[in-house]
Amino acid sequence: MNRIYKANILFTKEKSRFEILENGYIAVDDNGCVIGVAKDLASIDGEGAEIIDFGDRLLIPAMNDLHVHAPQYRNQGIAMDLELLPWLENYTFPEEMKYADTAYAERMYRRFVRDLWRFGTMRSCVFATIHTESTRLLMNIFEEAGMGALVGKVGMNRNCPEGLSESVESYIEGMEALMKEKGKSLVGTIITPRFVPTCTPEMLRACGELAAKYHLPVQSHLSENKDEIAWVAELEPESTCYGDAYNRYGLFGQTPTIMAHCVWSEGNEVELMKRNNVMVAHCPTSNFNVASGMAPIRRYLNEGLRVGLGSDISGGHDLSIFRMMVYAIQVSKMHYQQDHNLPFLTLSEAFWMATKSAGSFFGRVGSFEPGYEFDALVIDDRDLNHDNYTLLERIERYIYLGDDRQIVHRFCRGKEVVLCCGQAFK
Amino acid sequence: MNRIYKANILFTKEKSRFEILENGYIAVDDNGCVIGVAKDLASIDGEGAEIIDFGDRLLIPAMNDLHVHAPQYRNQGIAMDLELLPWLENYTFPEEMKYADTAYAERMYRRFVRDLWRFGTMRSCVFATIHTESTRLLMNIFEEAGMGALVGKVGMNRNCPEGLSESVESYIEGMEALMKEKGKSLVGTIITPRFVPTCTPEMLRACGELAAKYHLPVQSHLSENKDEIAWVAELEPESTCYGDAYNRYGLFGQTPTIMAHCVWSEGNEVELMKRNNVMVAHCPTSNFNVASGMAPIRRYLNEGLRVGLGSDISGGHDLSIFRMMVYAIQVSKMHYQQDHNLPFLTLSEAFWMATKSAGSFFGRVGSFEPGYEFDALVIDDRDLNHDNYTLLERIERYIYLGDDRQIVHRFCRGKEVVLCCGQAFK
Repeated sequence: MNRIYKANILFTKEKSRFEILENGYIAVDDNGCVIGVAKDLASIDGEGAEIIDFGDRLLIPAMNDLHVHAPQYRNQGIAMDLELLPWLENYTFPEEMKYADTAYAERMYRRFVRDLWRFGTMRSCVFATIHTESTRLLMNIFEEAGMGALVGKVGMNRNCPEGLSESVESYIEGMEALMKEKGKSLVGTIITPRFVPTCTPEMLRACGELAAKYHLPVQSHLSENKDEIAWVAELEPESTCYGDAYNRYGLFGQTPTIMAHCVWSEGNEVELMKRNNVMVAHCPTSNFNVASGMAPIRRYLNEGLRVGLGSDISGGHDLSIFRMMVYAIQVSKMHYQQDHNLPFLTLSEAFWMATKSAGSFFGRVGSFEPGYEFDALVIDDRDLNHDNYTLLERIERYIYLGDDRQIVHRFCRGKEVVLCCGQAFK
Repeated sequence: MNRIYKANILFTKEKSRFEILENGYIAVDDNGCVIGVAKDLASIDGEGAEIIDFGDRLLIPAMNDLHVHAPQYRNQGIAMDLELLPWLENYTFPEEMKYADTAYAERMYRRFVRDLWRFGTMRSCVFATIHTESTRLLMNIFEEAGMGALVGKVGMNRNCPEGLSESVESYIEGMEALMKEKGKSLVGTIITPRFVPTCTPEMLRACGELAAKYHLPVQSHLSENKDEIAWVAELEPESTCYGDAYNRYGLFGQTPTIMAHCVWSEGNEVELMKRNNVMVAHCPTSNFNVASGMAPIRRYLNEGLRVGLGSDISGGHDLSIFRMMVYAIQVSKMHYQQDHNLPFLTLSEAFWMATKSAGSFFGRVGSFEPGYEFDALVIDDRDLNHDNYTLLERIERYIYLGDDRQIVHRFCRGKEVVLCCGQAFK
């Protein structure tokens, strides 16, 4: 049966402004897709639909996280005093090795998915580890929760500890097993070479071939810091830029592609990203914590690149994509402070990046326009709304001041996603 | 009667490292001062003291906020898309004018103090407005709560709306009334010229004379953004730098002085601050939100300046001083990224800035060394502590991931500060 939700509805059809429907209505069909959204019930096609009234609450599109490392969940918020190399060697790699143990993986991955849920993230692009079994487990946990995810078994076979290196053959075998597992569900797999330095040309070639053969999307890291860029230039001397090192293996937009960070992309690389429709996963907290730098997102938007937001746990310390919006705006204000020709990101632009722009990687996700999948959050902001704020001020206050406490309902593809009380989400 | 608290105790005697006492003890006397802190009960002087056991919880010094505008509390987290001037004209100044109405002031100030309490801030340096009566009210609310504060009736008489301009005579009269009000309590008044552009030379002179006559501390804004610095140079052409414009009127360290922001201080100004022992209130979220820039705190520490942290509501959007530590570290990482001769701030340094360094402005506050006033928070981090983290990792996770929910007890000068259920803290 169709359903109609009544609430204060806010979303960003265009990045330049919020659509705001005070006491508006949104009709959703049996497939979980939006039929229509309107200020009054009469102008909506909801014959015989059940009406669910959320009163004075805010109804907004759910969050999308375009870059997050699930197996680094335990390391969230620790070891921030370390430089990149000791951090990888002493914290990240040893932790990822533990995911050979599926019991450990299950315990941690359930917590991870629960916390994505808490913060209202209904779709994610996730790095797992090299381990096929625990990656399958993570996919199943998302499936069980009813949350959308593209989960990547990580490809890596050089410049990493032995316990995290896998042969190309074994990688292909594992990917093919995972890929066939999922049909039309909310969960799928994604080709995930960790990044150029940890992948031999053979591994990159295998990744590109799998992507082409099965038309699978791709995710990796790009131009996060300057030492890394220099290293890639050494490893792949024939590439014209870091991005080209992926491009030469069919991993740069030949199928839908997300590249995380892009702090230092310019010239050729940006051109190539634009031509190939490669999407940027902007991870501002991580870029601060790992001392990478501040990605020039206004410049990328001006050049026509697609941009979404990512938490990048555990380089990033915060799972909330709302908090990423705040950081993205703040980073853009530092670019603006240096160059007034780069206007800072507005609230609606940051919101649009986290919803409609990022959501586009998952299909028609991230807006409330007709035909979009109904991924939504209901925000009860009474405790932040003590003085008759406008709806625009209320969403701004929620984004800046709110947290998981104010999220009282979560929907993914039309279905309410409820936290299980049982084993699943302990 | 003396009391002994048992818990996992962490504090920063030196900025370079945490003192960590697993299952340690701290003895506090009747005046609320620390007698001693030790790993075992036998080595502590607590004859006949009551022992309060906080079990596995963390016990740390409470937070100090060195720069916050109480009457901008309503505007917290809104209007962030505006540039400084329209923000002042349309949001800040109109809001501050409402504080002529003591009923409005009481409602808002009670919420404000409640929220400082929530986030564990037990001492604050606060800008109020020009209004003597509502400033008195704010002082009384802090007093009633049992929280420490230096509250400033704001001096301003030019370049501001008529409703926020006050004659020098009226300012002096109001300040003298407020000043005499408080004796040896936790709450006092502080000379608060808003900043040079809103104060005529007569107002600045009156402020300096009051500070000297009654030995009152001083707070104001300094070198927050480049346009402001240029404006001050125009207004006070005889000053060698912005700071000197305060110095010439006896408002720059002649009595204990806090200057907020100092994003662009250098050369002469830093020298003068060092010589006069002027303290920097570093407000990193505000500096981002208002597009001011990133204050070079490592450089200031290297030069021997005193530095504490400030939330700067509502330029800043977050009352949590723990969140300020994270931002301070992140800002320092951007300086480090540009110049590896400026090592980024470590966690213990950020914690020390928020506790022992900032606390020194209020007396012996911010550490657990003998003789320090017992300002403390008890943190129940069970929900963040799912995998046997070390105590150092636990405090780091709390600082990066925690919020008000994990603060389960708050102490100021030895007394537990409890949220009233009645009218006071609605």
